[in-house]
Amino acid sequence: MLSETILDDVLDALGADQLDQALDIVAELQAPDAASLVTELPLEEALRLIRSMPVRRRAAVFGYFGPPQQASLAHEMSRQELATLFGHMEHDERADLYNRLTPEQRRALLPGLAHAEREDLRLLASYAEGTVGSVMTSAYVTLRPTQTVHQTLETIRLEAPDVETIYLAYVVDDQRRILGTVSLRELILAPPDQQVEDIMTRDVVSCQANAPKSEAARLIAHYDLLAVPALNEAGQMVGIVTHDDALDVAQEGSTEDQLKLSAVGKLTGSLKDATVTSLFRMRVGWLTVLVFGNLFSGAGIAYFEDLIQGVVALVFFLPLLVDSGGNAGSQSSTLMVRALATGDVGARDWIRMLTKEATVALLLGLTMALAVSGIGLLRGGPSIALVVALTMVVIVIVGSVIGMLLPFVLARLNFDPAAASAPLITSICDGVGVLIYFNIANLVLSLPA
Amino acid sequence: MLSETILDDVLDALGADQLDQALDIVAELQAPDAASLVTELPLEEALRLIRSMPVRRRAAVFGYFGPPQQASLAHEMSRQELATLFGHMEHDERADLYNRLTPEQRRALLPGLAHAEREDLRLLASYAEGTVGSVMTSAYVTLRPTQTVHQTLETIRLEAPDVETIYLAYVVDDQRRILGTVSLRELILAPPDQQVEDIMTRDVVSCQANAPKSEAARLIAHYDLLAVPALNEAGQMVGIVTHDDALDVAQEGSTEDQLKLSAVGKLTGSLKDATVTSLFRMRVGWLTVLVFGNLFSGAGIAYFEDLIQGVVALVFFLPLLVDSGGNAGSQSSTLMVRALATGDVGARDWIRMLTKEATVALLLGLTMALAVSGIGLLRGGPSIALVVALTMVVIVIVGSVIGMLLPFVLARLNFDPAAASAPLITSICDGVGVLIYFNIANLVLSLPA
Repeated sequence: MLSETILDDVLDALGADQLDQALDIVAELQAPDAASLVTELPLEEALRLIRSMPVRRRAAVFGYFGPPQQASLAHEMSRQELATLFGHMEHDERADLYNRLTPEQRRALLPGLAHAEREDLRLLASYAEGTVGSVMTSAYVTLRPTQTVHQTLETIRLEAPDVETIYLAYVVDDQRRILGTVSLRELILAPPDQQVEDIMTRDVVSCQANAPKSEAARLIAHYDLLAVPALNEAGQMVGIVTHDDALDVAQEGSTEDQLKLSAVGKLTGSLKDATVTSLFRMRVGWLTVLVFGNLFSGAGIAYFEDLIQGVVALVFFLPLLVDSGGNAGSQSSTLMVRALATGDVGARDWIRMLTKEATVALLLGLTMALAVSGIGLLRGGPSIALVVALTMVVIVIVGSVIGMLLPFVLARLNFDPAAASAPLITSICDGVGVLIYFNIANLVLSLPA
Repeated sequence: MLSETILDDVLDALGADQLDQALDIVAELQAPDAASLVTELPLEEALRLIRSMPVRRRAAVFGYFGPPQQASLAHEMSRQELATLFGHMEHDERADLYNRLTPEQRRALLPGLAHAEREDLRLLASYAEGTVGSVMTSAYVTLRPTQTVHQTLETIRLEAPDVETIYLAYVVDDQRRILGTVSLRELILAPPDQQVEDIMTRDVVSCQANAPKSEAARLIAHYDLLAVPALNEAGQMVGIVTHDDALDVAQEGSTEDQLKLSAVGKLTGSLKDATVTSLFRMRVGWLTVLVFGNLFSGAGIAYFEDLIQGVVALVFFLPLLVDSGGNAGSQSSTLMVRALATGDVGARDWIRMLTKEATVALLLGLTMALAVSGIGLLRGGPSIALVVALTMVVIVIVGSVIGMLLPFVLARLNFDPAAASAPLITSICDGVGVLIYFNIANLVLSLPA
């Protein structure tokens, strides 16, 4: 995307005090790339460059900065500068920025804004992070049902510079309740004197503004929408979430799920910029919980100390057997968490999935038992080989079934199935695995040879 | 999305041989939901219902079926039925379907299609799965640079029923090389007699048709695009990828990454519909590799058998210590894999990340050491407590650093960093952890008390 040479050219131009030349280079870039470049500059230089951009471009580039960059630049701006910037940013982006300002900055800024802008900002900024309301925009076209197609095209032409999308317009009643949607495609194809209510689609997919934002992304993906409208609790339309925001939410959500699977807490913002303290905090909780989870394995081992002291060769196979259960379990939990998240599998499908999982696990266990029984034979003779092979089959089946069922149990208890992370499954399977292993060993080795 | 009641109602209507009633219920649903419902029906009933739908609706619903459902329905259809269906499906979806037909079906189908459709199908179906070409559509509006805005709006109005998006049009030269893009928004705002080349955007983001499809999704996300054009090797425009396909690719990609993190092979299609054999195959490879990886831990243990037999209490702490290294490692590898994938961190940032990772790991190690030394004291006295605490610090640091560096090494060697899955990291950290533990134990316990 952004080459190092361009960055060097800009730095050279700024170093030689040739602001115009630097501006020319940056003007060639698309807004997201210009934002990445400015982020790499020292704050002073970034500010000089940003201030010299035409105001629409400045607002567009500013919208692509990460939260820390936005905050530090905004911190250096005067009240007047901020008000101008707010006047030209997209509604959802300026609401995010507003939430990042200090209380003093907010108080200084508000009187500089027009009444409508202020109200809009208050509405959007009032939704909690992670909700549909926090990513929606209030800049969209609304229509009355009795407008003609011709009138509507005129309305859209007038509003086009200020709204986020003109490709979908929402037909609402006096109470801002949605009656239908009309796409620009339909408007262009319809006779100019037809009324909007005659061509609108009445069956409108919508979501609640205080629902999780992933819900809006899911609806947009499922129904292939350009945007989905958001309603307040009274059923009135308060905003729309557009397809580009849905894509951002999907990518962010996938990061969060992956971190959960590895038992890492929530990371907001960039890993590169994260502080040591925040990284420590997001990791220490789970690590400690898992240590204490492992005490069960330890207790299992302690219980069989005599057996171990008698046949110390058993310890050789301990990590191998116990880990296989954990690995099989983490495979099946990931498959299941993902299938539950995408809606591929529903909570009621658990019995059907259990049967299949048990069959697959039996096959896996038999294959793995075959693979390790040779080693068992070499290192410990026939009875150890038998113990190892038997244990492997049982451990892989039990591990897989635990890994498969836990996400369902969590979902049923209204927890997030993704909390069934690989390390958690591994810890549980470890404890269970130790018990299975030494019990089987005890049984087989105490039999008369 | 789809309630069980609706399904029951449709089944009842079909059972009572009231096809019209079943059709009425299904007609109320959005196409993706109608597709989910039909998928739940027995093949015979599904076919009856699909055949009775109006042709455009039939094509839309068909496009939302999963691959197995499409294949089994197509298998039952006559050549004429297939040709009609193909004539009304979206271009990218029918190319996918074509690739799923049997060679006989393909041969039977082709003569029934118009020449242009046949050529289009051949072009789209020729791109390998996973490429931009496999998700692009050839149904888009192209313009000549000298057209006026008025002429262009007429063109768009004419082509609207047949193209996937009318909101973006591509200005091309005689060789189909892209000169610029014009959005419907710009067209609506421009004076009707202006030429397209005067209002078009010349700086067009595009991608290669044989690039991985994730590249198209990345560009659409990065530049907030409605669609991105795809070029062949000669630089000619051959298709576009639209925002809804990008969202599908993003969600699919996130599933793939998560499966990789848990050492599961590639799953195409639904988990619910996957066969036992395919599930077995996607899991057995990694499980077996990991078993043999664990032999290193076993070998480490075997080497220290005398020590273990002497101080069997050491085995109590084995899972706890060794797992902590693996857990810390899988946390840091997930963070790093994700940061590399989203471009938050680049390959050149590894030194900077290493310093930070080591600091965080030291703090984590000290915290964990504190947590377990008490247990060490209780179960084994002061020298065991010392061994356990020391080992914990070293193991957490080493595990974290391995987990952090491996994705960078893989990226540098042009492997996928996501191959540094949690189970792989766990296996490596296990082996290293065993060596660290018993070496420290050997050292501390052999010191004169």
